[in-house]
Amino acid sequence: MGAKVGFFVFLTLFALCSSFPLERNYAPCKHLVLFFHDIIYNGRNALNATSAIVAAPEGANLTKLANLFHFGNLVVFDDPVTLDNNLHSEPVGRAQGFYIYDSKNTFSACLGFTFVLNNTHHEGTITLAGADPTLKKTRDISVTGGTGDFFMHRGIATIMTDAFEGDVYFRLRVEIKFYECW
Amino acid sequence: MGAKVGFFVFLTLFALCSSFPLERNYAPCKHLVLFFHDIIYNGRNALNATSAIVAAPEGANLTKLANLFHFGNLVVFDDPVTLDNNLHSEPVGRAQGFYIYDSKNTFSACLGFTFVLNNTHHEGTITLAGADPTLKKTRDISVTGGTGDFFMHRGIATIMTDAFEGDVYFRLRVEIKFYECW
Amino acid sequence: MGAKVGFFVFLTLFALCSSFPLERNYAPCKHLVLFFHDIIYNGRNALNATSAIVAAPEGANLTKLANLFHFGNLVVFDDPVTLDNNLHSEPVGRAQGFYIYDSKNTFSACLGFTFVLNNTHHEGTITLAGADPTLKKTRDISVTGGTGDFFMHRGIATIMTDAFEGDVYFRLRVEIKFYECW
Repeated sequence: MGAKVGFFVFLTLFALCSSFPLERNYAPCKHLVLFFHDIIYNGRNALNATSAIVAAPEGANLTKLANLFHFGNLVVFDDPVTLDNNLHSEPVGRAQGFYIYDSKNTFSACLGFTFVLNNTHHEGTITLAGADPTLKKTRDISVTGGTGDFFMHRGIATIMTDAFEGDVYFRLRVEIKFYECW
Repeated sequence: MGAKVGFFVFLTLFALCSSFPLERNYAPCKHLVLFFHDIIYNGRNALNATSAIVAAPEGANLTKLANLFHFGNLVVFDDPVTLDNNLHSEPVGRAQGFYIYDSKNTFSACLGFTFVLNNTHHEGTITLAGADPTLKKTRDISVTGGTGDFFMHRGIATIMTDAFEGDVYFRLRVEIKFYECW
Repeated sequence: MGAKVGFFVFLTLFALCSSFPLERNYAPCKHLVLFFHDIIYNGRNALNATSAIVAAPEGANLTKLANLFHFGNLVVFDDPVTLDNNLHSEPVGRAQGFYIYDSKNTFSACLGFTFVLNNTHHEGTITLAGADPTLKKTRDISVTGGTGDFFMHRGIATIMTDAFEGDVYFRLRVEIKFYECW
């Protein structure tokens, strides 16, 4: 009789405890590698460009604070996202947002954007924000939310500069590890 | 005796399991519908305007990347928030933040703002970020945090354009579903 | 026998329930006080300045919406962070991001930035966003994510203006209370 009660208690509480609570996952519960391609508008490439400088200290009628490192330049982008490092691969979505160069002494940016994915693999958005010290090999930023397939997700994105060609093109490799998946 | 032990175990663990852990709620634990009203500054409506374009590609002394779709325009807003779709209803707070038009091919914006609510119903802030493909009937963005009555909340906000009058006025209906409530 | 079963059930479920789930902490699980120092570029202090106005309504070739309260000014900053209120103390990191003045009627800003800490005490980033009604004694904003020592953290930051010297220098005291620590 005691055993039966114990077993009943076990089942009840197993259901209560193991299925509902949100768990800490120290191993990622979902994993994604995306590449995005940024073609900066230089006045002559309007057709191909995917981003443009929209604000800068001199634009506000102020003299420049820093000559190098683009301090204060605000860049808006709508970049194609691919699953490999080929700009011409079939895009799986867009990376949409902005970065602002924020250092006088090095290349560093404040980054805020959303991956908008709509393809056979994924349908949904992933929103990210953080500091991007561009010259470091890898940089971690926060995944602050998601919708659709990424409903309520949180995680960490590790960014690497995969290619950099002058002032016009760069490609980022973004490895997203979700630790809260719902 | 076994039954008593079982019952004691049940009570102990019920307390342990059901009250403390953060739970996944697949049904919203809180629900809110807000409207906000954006009156864009056009040079003549300073008294009524609640938002203004503060950056644009041509402002940074660059020629325009896209003529249509406002690509690169950064708009700052401080919009009244109401509980119904009437601009003249008693405001329950403000929506404060920015949007940046980020597409060459359609109307789409990167959105970041905070609802600051201070009224008899709610006291606190709700911070949101995400992509807003303006022409879609509904768009989901992430609720990334909250304070006051919305302490540590997370959720999803579904945005609908409720009205759009030329370049001067639009109204958004925002349905916020919180899935993490604390 | 019932007691033994009960005890076994207790141990099993204690392990199941108390260790893995993510818990709601109503008392902070981590606590941090940081100061950051903002020296605004005024055209003459390029060497010391840590921030600059990079966009403003008149920069976009529009006349000003509001003369007072800096409505629409977008400021980018890369400010030194210290553990006390002394600008000349050894910095423990940087605060990097932006604020946009967003009110016609008072001093209020939309704030987005990341603490990048790299010192003997802390290595990692903390990303914050929210509304900053500058004239209030204390303002709460959301900690939306973290990396490194602050992996997946969330919490609330309480901001106080600790000093304000004309248009050139201000110092913020930021008390960060983490409620989700991992």
